Amino acid sequence: MPDGLGPALEAPLFESAAIIGVGLIGSSLARIVRRKGLARRIIAFDSNAAVRRRALEIGLADHVPDTLGEAVAGADLVVLCAPVGAMEDIARDMAPHLADGTIVSDVGSVKAAVIAALAPLLPPNVHLIPAHPVAGTEESGPDAGFASLFYNRWTIVTPPDDADPRAVAKLIALWKHAGANVEIMSAAHHDLVLAITSHVPHLIAYNIVGTAADLEEVTQSEVIKFSAGGFRDFTRIAASDPVMWRDIFLANKDAVLEMLGRFSEDLTALQRMIRRGDGEGLQDLFARTRAIRRSIIDLGQETAAPDFGRRAKADTEG
Amino acid sequence: MPDGLGPALEAPLFESAAIIGVGLIGSSLARIVRRKGLARRIIAFDSNAAVRRRALEIGLADHVPDTLGEAVAGADLVVLCAPVGAMEDIARDMAPHLADGTIVSDVGSVKAAVIAALAPLLPPNVHLIPAHPVAGTEESGPDAGFASLFYNRWTIVTPPDDADPRAVAKLIALWKHAGANVEIMSAAHHDLVLAITSHVPHLIAYNIVGTAADLEEVTQSEVIKFSAGGFRDFTRIAASDPVMWRDIFLANKDAVLEMLGRFSEDLTALQRMIRRGDGEGLQDLFARTRAIRRSIIDLGQETAAPDFGRRAKADTEG
Repeated sequence: MPDGLGPALEAPLFESAAIIGVGLIGSSLARIVRRKGLARRIIAFDSNAAVRRRALEIGLADHVPDTLGEAVAGADLVVLCAPVGAMEDIARDMAPHLADGTIVSDVGSVKAAVIAALAPLLPPNVHLIPAHPVAGTEESGPDAGFASLFYNRWTIVTPPDDADPRAVAKLIALWKHAGANVEIMSAAHHDLVLAITSHVPHLIAYNIVGTAADLEEVTQSEVIKFSAGGFRDFTRIAASDPVMWRDIFLANKDAVLEMLGRFSEDLTALQRMIRRGDGEGLQDLFARTRAIRRSIIDLGQETAAPDFGRRAKADTEG
Repeated sequence: MPDGLGPALEAPLFESAAIIGVGLIGSSLARIVRRKGLARRIIAFDSNAAVRRRALEIGLADHVPDTLGEAVAGADLVVLCAPVGAMEDIARDMAPHLADGTIVSDVGSVKAAVIAALAPLLPPNVHLIPAHPVAGTEESGPDAGFASLFYNRWTIVTPPDDADPRAVAKLIALWKHAGANVEIMSAAHHDLVLAITSHVPHLIAYNIVGTAADLEEVTQSEVIKFSAGGFRDFTRIAASDPVMWRDIFLANKDAVLEMLGRFSEDLTALQRMIRRGDGEGLQDLFARTRAIRRSIIDLGQETAAPDFGRRAKADTEG
């Protein structure tokens, strides 16, 4: 396994996998499903006609029909890879076309709201098994995807209490064959975990980049030139897809506001330490946060290269 | 110039350069001064005896004396690479040993406070020309440095109004030969620019990592596992040297509190948008922040590789 992804399966897990939405995640899923032979046939659909054409051009799927109904008809796996806010409309449109026994899943960063949007609209004989691959880059669109996106990242599966264990097992197998580690949790807990590990980090990154852009005393050009002091790290996640992130904040409102409240409380305390000149308090916090990065690196979730390995661009001699 | 750093000078700029403090920045400066032949002789000093021994072992300098006085005696360039809070003590200790005409500079992330600490204590016949290379990694210590750290980064020089133009020109030449771009500005403006491009970003990174570590509903193990959702980007700068950063916040208190106030105001507005479900407002901000990253990449201050190029660790096939 020179690339860590392993050989293709001898027998596919699914006959026909429909991937609805072929942006970064959908197109990465299509690529790994193809590469590992996880489905005999791959159908892709996107509401954007230009994206559908591009998906055909780059060979993401065997078939890219013009309607959602055609895309899901006959599929035994449907994975919704669209912004969270689009789920309800998609469910309504595709429901009449779903075959009995189909597994319907998604990749949304919010789970409770997605389940609330999908569950009431799906026919009784399909299996709704929501999931969330915690992986991505700041890029968007069908060309941004790659087969190893999920490799050694976690996919969280949040099956309803009454889910069919065989359907759950099959969806877990899909993600494991895609290279992911799988964790099972409740939708509510997922939403709380992601609020702190993903949603609030994105929110404060968007916020500081916005604050810097609006200053009058410091020019945009200065912000850009001197960004190597730390600011540029935030611009990466603040370059993520705007519609996707709008939907995430609206759909995970309660957990985001709760975690944002904790963040703001802590920030107020830190502000007070600075105002009062409490060097000991500052140093205590700063020493504590170092250890967490070490753990993330040790778990293979982060590069150990200093400065995210940016140094490679200039020179490698000491 | 396979490495972009260019050949060594034929005649050195300085006879004897004393580098006081050999952590990440000091040891990188020593390496590039050696590599480019910017000084005939390099003297290094560190208040920590183990660091002095290590500096000798890895050949960072020609001489690593045991006292600060010996280190600066006879030097025509002294660069203070110590935490901002240590500047006053260093100035007091070294002042009696400084030769007439010596250029005294530093690399601190705060300029007004450093000037206030140094200027009253230095003898009248030395040239104080403060500077700040806006470059670094999250690592610390003499082994963390490398010669290309300053390459294509900006060094901000903040000469006093009555500075000797020849001394200023010589210090600028040092940094240009080290590969840096040089910008001149007032100390006060520097401190405001760095508050938004470096200090507040570090503060909110330290803060969110601290918030995540203290949660009861979400375990530390979950934060680490699912950090690929965005959180891990913040842990890099929250792994920076605790003492150095404590000193920066204490020394640049006014500008940091001012910029932090703007950040918090903006965050409150964003929080309100989420609470009220203002999707349009959220999307507007999120679309605006994308462009800034593009500019930073275009200016060569950031990698264009998605996800900071972390993908390289798994596989590179689409």
